[in-house]
Amino acid sequence: MKTKIALSLVAAVACIAAFAESLNCASPDGKNALSFALGEKGEPTYSFAYRGRTVVEPSTLGFDIKALGKDAFDGRKPGELRTGFVLAGVERASADETWKPVWGEESEIRDRHEEMLVKLVQKGTGRRMDLRFRVFDDGMGFRYEFPADDDNSVARLVPGENIAPEGKTQPLTHFTIVEERTRFNLPCDATAWWIPADYETQEYRYTKSRVSEIPSLFKAAPDANLSSTLTDFPAVQTALMLKYDNGLLVNIHEAACVDYATMHLRVDGTSFESSLTPDATGAKGWMQTPCKSPWRTLIVGGKGADILASRITLNLNEPCAIEDTSWIHPVKYIGVWWTMITGAKNWAYMPDPSMHAANTTNVMRHIDFAAEHGFDEVLVEGWDIGFEDWFGKEKDAVFDFVTPYPDFDLEGLNKYAHEKGVKLMMYHETSASTRNYERHLDEAYALMNRLGYDSVKAGYVGNILPHGETHYSQWSNNHYLYCIKEAAKRKIMVNQHEAVRPTGLCRTWPNLIGNEAARGTEYESFGGNNADHTTILPFTRLVGGPMDYTPGIFETDLSKICSWKKQRISTTLAGQLALYVTMFSPLQMAADVPESYEKRLDALQFIKDVPCDWDESRYLEAEIGDYLTIVRKAKGKDEWYLGMKADENEHEADIVLDFLTPGKTYEATIYADAPDAVYRTETAGNYVIEKRTVTASDRLHLRAAPGGGAAVSFRLLQ
Amino acid sequence: MKTKIALSLVAAVACIAAFAESLNCASPDGKNALSFALGEKGEPTYSFAYRGRTVVEPSTLGFDIKALGKDAFDGRKPGELRTGFVLAGVERASADETWKPVWGEESEIRDRHEEMLVKLVQKGTGRRMDLRFRVFDDGMGFRYEFPADDDNSVARLVPGENIAPEGKTQPLTHFTIVEERTRFNLPCDATAWWIPADYETQEYRYTKSRVSEIPSLFKAAPDANLSSTLTDFPAVQTALMLKYDNGLLVNIHEAACVDYATMHLRVDGTSFESSLTPDATGAKGWMQTPCKSPWRTLIVGGKGADILASRITLNLNEPCAIEDTSWIHPVKYIGVWWTMITGAKNWAYMPDPSMHAANTTNVMRHIDFAAEHGFDEVLVEGWDIGFEDWFGKEKDAVFDFVTPYPDFDLEGLNKYAHEKGVKLMMYHETSASTRNYERHLDEAYALMNRLGYDSVKAGYVGNILPHGETHYSQWSNNHYLYCIKEAAKRKIMVNQHEAVRPTGLCRTWPNLIGNEAARGTEYESFGGNNADHTTILPFTRLVGGPMDYTPGIFETDLSKICSWKKQRISTTLAGQLALYVTMFSPLQMAADVPESYEKRLDALQFIKDVPCDWDESRYLEAEIGDYLTIVRKAKGKDEWYLGMKADENEHEADIVLDFLTPGKTYEATIYADAPDAVYRTETAGNYVIEKRTVTASDRLHLRAAPGGGAAVSFRLLQ
Repeated sequence: MKTKIALSLVAAVACIAAFAESLNCASPDGKNALSFALGEKGEPTYSFAYRGRTVVEPSTLGFDIKALGKDAFDGRKPGELRTGFVLAGVERASADETWKPVWGEESEIRDRHEEMLVKLVQKGTGRRMDLRFRVFDDGMGFRYEFPADDDNSVARLVPGENIAPEGKTQPLTHFTIVEERTRFNLPCDATAWWIPADYETQEYRYTKSRVSEIPSLFKAAPDANLSSTLTDFPAVQTALMLKYDNGLLVNIHEAACVDYATMHLRVDGTSFESSLTPDATGAKGWMQTPCKSPWRTLIVGGKGADILASRITLNLNEPCAIEDTSWIHPVKYIGVWWTMITGAKNWAYMPDPSMHAANTTNVMRHIDFAAEHGFDEVLVEGWDIGFEDWFGKEKDAVFDFVTPYPDFDLEGLNKYAHEKGVKLMMYHETSASTRNYERHLDEAYALMNRLGYDSVKAGYVGNILPHGETHYSQWSNNHYLYCIKEAAKRKIMVNQHEAVRPTGLCRTWPNLIGNEAARGTEYESFGGNNADHTTILPFTRLVGGPMDYTPGIFETDLSKICSWKKQRISTTLAGQLALYVTMFSPLQMAADVPESYEKRLDALQFIKDVPCDWDESRYLEAEIGDYLTIVRKAKGKDEWYLGMKADENEHEADIVLDFLTPGKTYEATIYADAPDAVYRTETAGNYVIEKRTVTASDRLHLRAAPGGGAAVSFRLLQ
Repeated sequence: MKTKIALSLVAAVACIAAFAESLNCASPDGKNALSFALGEKGEPTYSFAYRGRTVVEPSTLGFDIKALGKDAFDGRKPGELRTGFVLAGVERASADETWKPVWGEESEIRDRHEEMLVKLVQKGTGRRMDLRFRVFDDGMGFRYEFPADDDNSVARLVPGENIAPEGKTQPLTHFTIVEERTRFNLPCDATAWWIPADYETQEYRYTKSRVSEIPSLFKAAPDANLSSTLTDFPAVQTALMLKYDNGLLVNIHEAACVDYATMHLRVDGTSFESSLTPDATGAKGWMQTPCKSPWRTLIVGGKGADILASRITLNLNEPCAIEDTSWIHPVKYIGVWWTMITGAKNWAYMPDPSMHAANTTNVMRHIDFAAEHGFDEVLVEGWDIGFEDWFGKEKDAVFDFVTPYPDFDLEGLNKYAHEKGVKLMMYHETSASTRNYERHLDEAYALMNRLGYDSVKAGYVGNILPHGETHYSQWSNNHYLYCIKEAAKRKIMVNQHEAVRPTGLCRTWPNLIGNEAARGTEYESFGGNNADHTTILPFTRLVGGPMDYTPGIFETDLSKICSWKKQRISTTLAGQLALYVTMFSPLQMAADVPESYEKRLDALQFIKDVPCDWDESRYLEAEIGDYLTIVRKAKGKDEWYLGMKADENEHEADIVLDFLTPGKTYEATIYADAPDAVYRTETAGNYVIEKRTVTASDRLHLRAAPGGGAAVSFRLLQ
């Protein structure tokens, strides 16, 4: 990785005992301003302005905790890290670094920010809590840092201050988080695109409302889900997208959530306060100094494209921890999947083997299709014993991840696939039993290595075991990352479903090529998605990392797949194609059954052509909840792909093709909705394909039908 | 294993709709009677009499549950399995089998019992619950069995009865135990030797009181322990020893606790009701039919020796599950341990390496001593990184079980030991973090295999992780057994400390050669044991299996080991020797430091001679809380060893030597308290050794000082 780093450390400023003025940190372009101050009671307080407009008004920071005393038999005593702080120093740094992701929306990412580390000591206890702010041109991030309390030099830190009586400091070594109390005081009653805070699921439709309206809408928002534990107070999940009345767009999320519980945002009037996911005992974090929180991020822009173009989440994560990444690659795949999701077939072999989708013959048919059309891998769900009795039953030990059903020829199918240049993709349904999965992980991964699987989709359906833990508690977050790290040791790529929402960890662990963590295409069968769903996700769920949304449904009438499923998907066919560009992921599925594609090979061509890894991405237009158009340059090729996606309303745009290399000629293949196409109707599958020769000086008029979209490939003509 | 089995199955009796009479099952000798009946409300009820005397008056059986409905989204609905039952059949069987334990108090164990299986169906729900009773000459056991609810033939089970409307049965497939409601209605206000019910620790002193007095004494009973969660109602732990006013001795415990929470006994007047250990959510068991409870056991006798001689706990466990047991062997060991327990040295290398006991030089000295005196193994605690920061801190990840402190030459010391014919014993302090231990288990065991360790002492100090689980919940019990099974695969013997109290699982998994699960010798340093402690343990803790009590403290004044530890142990030196016989274990430690033994090599001779595996055991006298005398025959040798242990009072007995082979002459070496020896005084270490030639027709007068004991070896003279 080629990096340019410019760091300049400014010596700590002298302590100011009666600290009243604020410490400021401007963005590299000088246009954004982070301001920090200690309040009257010594409460850490920050505010943030973006190009002169307030993003967050003065908001307090801190924690309620329980801290272990000097004697282990004492237990943990209640305390707080919210008031009584004095300033012990400030350190500043500048960074301007460009790094290359293993895969991504662009091949080079610039990390340019100003940093301010505010060092604090609490009077009376002598406890230390630092705040590290990083201010970017497109937002900011900050995190809490708790230095190791291994020196008794607190007095030395703040010479003029009587911090704590000699020998009476209460060292902060091992502590429990009762609650993180990070406030986001907003300057207005913003419009929010939100899903309710839930410790178990993120698979919700979005609600658009004023922040002040969330409490009254909160309980009505939930959709049916097998595993759901709503917060018992009105709160929302991140990444949360807000629009201020002055047009400012603000995204609140977190970056690098490692060994920490996932954050929710508790609604308080028109503002928010952090609330972490508790463990089985109600504790929200088990900490030991030195330690730190994840970054709390504010991505800000004047228009939607600013949010989509931001790389703050990735930039606040640690560099890649895997030395040799040559085995990590984008994956385009099909699966033995949609027949089960629609209800046409079963995951389980029992009680009716004729209904079992993952049988050797059927999988061979999928391998043949993948080989013929250039797909890298074939996912097979329901191949191993356990599916016959687990769903919703919270069983401790269900799967062993190595024992196939009798009609699935594990070795033979892998051999068959490899002979055809295709790989099978492993599926591990963990049954949300983290212990059972970890007990079998080594053997399961070893089997994958032996048979030549290089990627696994891991599911966490149902309530998490151990009982009392939830999908987003520190314990569970620790589990997901453990599986990713163990997989990296064995050169296995991971795609986690029903796991925690991503926070950019794929920078550090690029073998995490996929996450679900939102309502995906499967809900087109389970009750439907809103037509605007995929015009919102890029502003929310995707801020943390790519999503395995599994697009590509060509048969928009599900009763054609499963006779009793009288349901239509919420986009047009062309809209499905657009998602391969608008919903970035290095892992892209063509989720429909081979028969659906075989009937529409001309449309399939786009899925075959579109890459999942890019040199460059341009966000041509993006209005959350309405429409967006993105164009991306294929990695290492002078080849561009465009996706336009509309909500329930028709959308038209004139696209300036100035992203193309000047002086070159391209063949544009336009996959568009037919004039009569309307989502959720019998015309939804109607599309038109047009080829046109274009150059950088051309314009292209594109139209998306209601619930529709458009997809265009631009391939160089020699 | 040579077994004789005689089974006779009696066909099910016809259903009796209006069931009022009782079903009876007598012991093989015809003297004990188990009686079962359904009460007016269809409540299962049992009673038990031992040789004409009531042990348990009619007592109800059953559960409060939550059962999963037909639809996983329904969740689990409250229900009960206590009333409304009708009889669906009775099956009877007789067994008389002799089996050979891999190690034990005797080389052959007879399992002779009458069995009655009572099959029940609940009206209205159609749910099935069976009760399997086994009646022995020395007590009885029963368990609940829940057949798989996979047939809808409930009506066929009880033809004359309208069990449940057609199609309206509520199948019992997956259910949660809210509480097990097994009652033990006692016929009098018995005297009990008890420790309070606690979900985290068993390391209590015993209290002797009437059952009715337990509630008022309950909260005063606890001793300080790092990890303790008392029940919030008066209850006691099992094995519970009771003495009725008519002299009858009754022991209540459980056998074969597998995938189930540990049982406590809730006090209700002068009776008890079962109460299981909850998980983090309060649930007391996650069950799926077919499944069963552990056995609930009543061991009964007219005198103390009857209780000690009973093999009901082992007989109610499954046969050995390990095919090749040749690698399992008794272990006599010393340890780098007592210096840390007394406070003279540290487990951790930091902060003061000179205080670190597990250093290469010190361990070599112990290896030398073990080799010179014929000990099999040397336990070394505190050898691996992690001890410097863990105690009482509930950290998730502390130890990796493979990384030694810099002053511990892991490979070199094993090589050194093996050259001298000694093995090192591994120590795994799990820090009670079950996940962290399981994550490292394979690597940790692999290291043991590679270096030639064949046994591990595994500790579970502190609160169990995951947070909210406790030491005795189903989750934790599952963990302990998992470790034992994984160890068996790698031919590793396991000795678990601070784990769950044993329930005879060592029959099935004889590589479980040791358990602590009670207040052991370590408390002689931590606050003291009562003088009668080891006259109670054989009646309570040892009913479930052997205990690694770690006797052999020769330096009765702890200030000689650690200058600031002004404490004396609660026995005399001769009393310590007696424990090698009275506290059966295939794993016996000589717990003191080598220097203590080197000063008293004549007394050490008994520890060197005494075996830990036996052909035969005779319980010559046994008065709980007062004294006991046991004599055992060495396995495969005409050699006997006697131990007599007294409480705080002096005890004398004339021992008839008729256990010796008639016509043979033996050298008896008698290790006795000196006439002036008194426990907890400066004379406690005074002992006398006398040799005498004896035959089977002789008598031996033995005397134990207050807190003392006597030990005798009888070795054949040729």
